Amino acid sequence: MHQCAQKTMKLICSQKKLNNGLNIVEKAIGKSLPVLECVLVSAKEDKIELSTTNLEISIKHQLSAQVEEEGQIVVPAKLFSDFVEKLPNKDIELNVQKNALEVKCGEFKAKINGLDVNDFPVIPEIKSESPTEIKQNILKETLSRVIEMASTSESRPEISGVFINPIDKSTKIVATDSFRLAEKNIETKFEQAIILPRQTVQELIKILDNDGEKAKIFIDDNQILFDLGETKIKSRLIEGPYPDYQKIIPQDFETKITIDRQELIDNLVVSSIFANKINEIKLIIDPQESQIKIISHSEKGKNESCIKAEIESKVEGELIEILFNYKYILDGLNNMFSDKIILNIAENAHKTIINPVGDNSYIYLIMPLAKSDSE
Amino acid sequence: MHQCAQKTMKLICSQKKLNNGLNIVEKAIGKSLPVLECVLVSAKEDKIELSTTNLEISIKHQLSAQVEEEGQIVVPAKLFSDFVEKLPNKDIELNVQKNALEVKCGEFKAKINGLDVNDFPVIPEIKSESPTEIKQNILKETLSRVIEMASTSESRPEISGVFINPIDKSTKIVATDSFRLAEKNIETKFEQAIILPRQTVQELIKILDNDGEKAKIFIDDNQILFDLGETKIKSRLIEGPYPDYQKIIPQDFETKITIDRQELIDNLVVSSIFANKINEIKLIIDPQESQIKIISHSEKGKNESCIKAEIESKVEGELIEILFNYKYILDGLNNMFSDKIILNIAENAHKTIINPVGDNSYIYLIMPLAKSDSE
Repeated sequence: MHQCAQKTMKLICSQKKLNNGLNIVEKAIGKSLPVLECVLVSAKEDKIELSTTNLEISIKHQLSAQVEEEGQIVVPAKLFSDFVEKLPNKDIELNVQKNALEVKCGEFKAKINGLDVNDFPVIPEIKSESPTEIKQNILKETLSRVIEMASTSESRPEISGVFINPIDKSTKIVATDSFRLAEKNIETKFEQAIILPRQTVQELIKILDNDGEKAKIFIDDNQILFDLGETKIKSRLIEGPYPDYQKIIPQDFETKITIDRQELIDNLVVSSIFANKINEIKLIIDPQESQIKIISHSEKGKNESCIKAEIESKVEGELIEILFNYKYILDGLNNMFSDKIILNIAENAHKTIINPVGDNSYIYLIMPLAKSDSE
Repeated sequence: MHQCAQKTMKLICSQKKLNNGLNIVEKAIGKSLPVLECVLVSAKEDKIELSTTNLEISIKHQLSAQVEEEGQIVVPAKLFSDFVEKLPNKDIELNVQKNALEVKCGEFKAKINGLDVNDFPVIPEIKSESPTEIKQNILKETLSRVIEMASTSESRPEISGVFINPIDKSTKIVATDSFRLAEKNIETKFEQAIILPRQTVQELIKILDNDGEKAKIFIDDNQILFDLGETKIKSRLIEGPYPDYQKIIPQDFETKITIDRQELIDNLVVSSIFANKINEIKLIIDPQESQIKIISHSEKGKNESCIKAEIESKVEGELIEILFNYKYILDGLNNMFSDKIILNIAENAHKTIINPVGDNSYIYLIMPLAKSDSE
């Protein structure tokens, strides 16, 4: 932590705006080097720019300020953010002296030791001039409904992200871990197919607004920029190709079950208490009685419950038995918002597609577990 | 987990009451043996009794039931409790078959494998016939305000509990870890001085009611029983003697400071962000200016803030400097409910007693940190 010649910086800004900005940029701090745990604070014209990067994602946030002297400093992001958060909602005075950041607000006066500004990584520019525009709330909802399904394993990096796949005039947003897959169709056409890293999507979901403000998206080789106005998020992309997932989605179905979504969730949650180590539950579909039995058992004991359902089946008079990982069904059901859902069970392998009734834009594919020998 | 000859048991009870009972007795399950992770369910006359023990604390809870056949079974407490919690608020049917507990409620039907009833530990009886009676809400509040100060170190078991110390017509409830001490006086006179283990107090605080229902307390050698009606909590006691703490409480004070409690809390919380590894903050008391400066510093930086206060001091015209662990001051302040508090600083060693203004029943003693060499 050596001291270096530093431009002074002097400005006044609002505690609320600075706190908000620090909360946003904090999401991209890294841990591998002390300088990556820092925020670069730059004052220029009538703005402060806060920047962070973990070398994968970088975030910049601008806020207005009365800048008396331009300059910059690099300080530990969490310390600065924790401190500003606790300050009263008043004007804050920032002042750089001998590579330390003086912060004054009301009765509080702090001095935060800075790091060398020259050690802060340079964030590469994006060369792209034709952005895709999309409403932030739509992007946020779409990413939220698929992100859980992205693989967390490092062995297959191409599925450890969310696939953005433009087709015709719309785009399919896809994630899978090979046990289940979620696909959401949106009306916006992206310029090219890309794979967004899991962590980028997670942070983006937290930062995107709930209102209809537009996000501008610029793509350039292996980088993407989300321009949200005051906040700009840049991320590397995952190199593809993404697997040709569409060929595993079944088209012919043996059985179609329409069922109350919340009732199925409630029954699965109870059943899960008795599930074994691989989270196995058995569905026994009875078309004649119009009901589904949900059965779980382990060395601890056994549970059974029953739900009424509308069942259309090509297999007349026969019970259909399928084993699922209950977590995978719940993840799908929790990302649907309709009262009723449809389980479409494919002819041979029993691959199942879950659709929310009344929303054709979302499909959830779940692979059944292989039949176990127990009971 | 061998099966043994078992009385059958058959009964109906309410989901709500059973859930409530299991939540209470779950607090005393142990981990060292599978049978200690269990609840003993006994049906007799028109009652179910749930019992658990971790060999230090044992809890019994009784609830009414329509008992068709008396009997008992031992089942894993967490599994049973998790399952009952998720069931609908309806009647539950319990039925023992071949040492498994069948549970039926609405559409749900489960079977929980039991353990051998004979392996469940026998909980010793308490031979005492003269209980101390105290309102549950008063006991709960009193224990809550001192428990944090009990030592968590195993090296001095006698201070790892709460000291119940009857003096004249009242009782002093005391806890200390030798860095700070809290003492609350209550108007009830306990029969004898005892030391209650930390964990017993923690669980007791969760179970005691917020209303004025009486608890009956029976003490017998090395055991205590809290009889709350439907729930009975038994615990071993810690062998004393408790240290003669009263001789370390100072009687003469150099300085008396009256200050706003919430303002002091807020300033300490901000200051804590810059505190060093031993949580050191410095108070500089300025009787002439009627203010206290709060200063913290570490390799990260430095913070300073200032609060107005009423200060009476024997040391005229001089600043008084004291170093504290900020956590210890906050723990005390957070257990006081008055708007203003008084810091009484003792003459030489700077031991400080904090009193809530208007509540003489609670005192909090805090030892200052030795002067550090930094700055």
